[in-house]
Amino acid sequence: MTNLSQAVQDERTARMVLSMIVEPDDAVTGRLLGDLGVRELFRLAEGDDVVPGLSTVDAQVWRAQFERSDARTLAQHIVEAERAGIGTLIPDDKEWPSALDDLGDRRPYVLWTRGTTSFLMRPLGDLVTITGARAATSYGEHVAGQLASDLANAERIVVTGGTYGIEGAAHRAALASGGDTIAVMANGVDRPYPMGHRELLERVADLGLMVSEVPPGAVPTRHRFLARARLMATFSAVTVVVEAGVRSGSMTVARRAHELGRTVGAVPGPVTSATSAGPHLLLQDGLARLVTGTGDIESLVAHKNGPDPGQAIGRRDSQRQPTADRSRPAYRDTACLATPVVL
Amino acid sequence: MTNLSQAVQDERTARMVLSMIVEPDDAVTGRLLGDLGVRELFRLAEGDDVVPGLSTVDAQVWRAQFERSDARTLAQHIVEAERAGIGTLIPDDKEWPSALDDLGDRRPYVLWTRGTTSFLMRPLGDLVTITGARAATSYGEHVAGQLASDLANAERIVVTGGTYGIEGAAHRAALASGGDTIAVMANGVDRPYPMGHRELLERVADLGLMVSEVPPGAVPTRHRFLARARLMATFSAVTVVVEAGVRSGSMTVARRAHELGRTVGAVPGPVTSATSAGPHLLLQDGLARLVTGTGDIESLVAHKNGPDPGQAIGRRDSQRQPTADRSRPAYRDTACLATPVVL
Repeated sequence: MTNLSQAVQDERTARMVLSMIVEPDDAVTGRLLGDLGVRELFRLAEGDDVVPGLSTVDAQVWRAQFERSDARTLAQHIVEAERAGIGTLIPDDKEWPSALDDLGDRRPYVLWTRGTTSFLMRPLGDLVTITGARAATSYGEHVAGQLASDLANAERIVVTGGTYGIEGAAHRAALASGGDTIAVMANGVDRPYPMGHRELLERVADLGLMVSEVPPGAVPTRHRFLARARLMATFSAVTVVVEAGVRSGSMTVARRAHELGRTVGAVPGPVTSATSAGPHLLLQDGLARLVTGTGDIESLVAHKNGPDPGQAIGRRDSQRQPTADRSRPAYRDTACLATPVVL
Repeated sequence: MTNLSQAVQDERTARMVLSMIVEPDDAVTGRLLGDLGVRELFRLAEGDDVVPGLSTVDAQVWRAQFERSDARTLAQHIVEAERAGIGTLIPDDKEWPSALDDLGDRRPYVLWTRGTTSFLMRPLGDLVTITGARAATSYGEHVAGQLASDLANAERIVVTGGTYGIEGAAHRAALASGGDTIAVMANGVDRPYPMGHRELLERVADLGLMVSEVPPGAVPTRHRFLARARLMATFSAVTVVVEAGVRSGSMTVARRAHELGRTVGAVPGPVTSATSAGPHLLLQDGLARLVTGTGDIESLVAHKNGPDPGQAIGRRDSQRQPTADRSRPAYRDTACLATPVVL
């Protein structure tokens, strides 16, 4: 076993390695990374000093993640990823989306990318997230496609998650309109998921951008889907839920967006349709504004649509602003985030 | 020509006669009626004294309405109405709905009734108005019927306007569930409108209540439809719009309800359906709360559904309270009411 803190010399490689060891959306690791830097984090993980802020037991649990890691094997994975044309972004990079800094301790360690990373430098208001049910109705897919197509024609970038149903319809329509689209993955960018969308997602990687915070080879898990939800919400100014069950991943994306002070839109549908129950609940709870078309989304981006229903909405300007200098990002203390899984 | 102020001896007859002469929802007549009483109003109309609050020209226009009236002919109409079993309610009556007093100067002069007037003595929260498009979709009619049926089973009274589409579906479902329903007419209660609903409306008059502020024989006009909208809104604690075009009578009912401090609910539908554009607009403007079923309506009645979106909503308790002693009803000064037509 090669020692990580000695083997890993540069920040980028260290963060790539870290993402191969620790699950994403882990606020403990994020806090240590922010406070100490990645090399000191590795030294701490491989030593037996007191870990700042952790009890002895918690420190043991945290350290356990690093025990199975061998620097030489991980370095080999990195070489393979680079050979496969997979890129990375770290906070020092010009193209690192400062929007992600709003996540505070839950900021990704690194982004693995395939495609046009310059999309991430566009103003936050240029990016719109569309999410929704896998088991969508033809009505939902029609609306998602129409919204994505209209957004593409308005030079917006359609951010979504590549799943069946609403998200696939949004990707397809954005591409068909010659527009830009970003697929945020809960798995490695080398293995598009779901399988049935392999061809679609390869086209997104070719013509748009595929991005993930988990390393190549990683499979999607429940925790990674939850972690991905916060990324989908963070990348854009407005998240629109087209159809969703009341207990679905799309609702998680909407709630994360609301917690982050992003604006949430919800597309209504028949009250007789279970897949419209999620959007209706968001509207009833005052977490979302009603969206009937792209005009409503444009209004939400421009904050021209009257007073916002939720207290958190509207805190952010539609122009992206650097937030890295905030001493305590709002997201850090949010109680209702998914509990980070420490493997 | 017999002189009105001399021929008409009692308050009830005077108000019946007044409703045969002056169009409903006329704030000038309503103000004079409230300030002077009906017999002094007739004396003023038939004399040439200064009319309080009116310029000479306005007084002439107001007086012109009374010129064609002959007390003897009108008395004959009243006898015919009584023979036909048509009843009346005036503010002195025990069964006069005090909810109507919220209309201030726009309170009806009299209510002409066929059926169970005791419905009007129930607490305001027991009455729910359902309104919607004549050219409804099968989705809209299905939802209207379901809501009305559930409300009937919950011992609520379904108030609606007897038109084709949503309102007819609501009446039919309430009756089919053995529930109570009130039809508010823009025409005389002796001539149910529309013709195609004659049988349905006769059943409402037999099993429920048919009510109008225009006298027997009166035909529906644009002004009477607008006036009726405020009555439909006033009778109940909650008005629910099931489907409606953005410029429709149902939207008028919703706006009147909001202006009166009543709660408005809107049923969403597909954004691709023009008949759902009205409810969606009400939701976007914060005038209505989203309703997916009777549970939501019950919450609105009980004011348990979180903060109200509009400033006016929530001012009234679900128990009916006497408001006749208010010196200046809120409705009096509302600028956006329909301009009263003085014939």
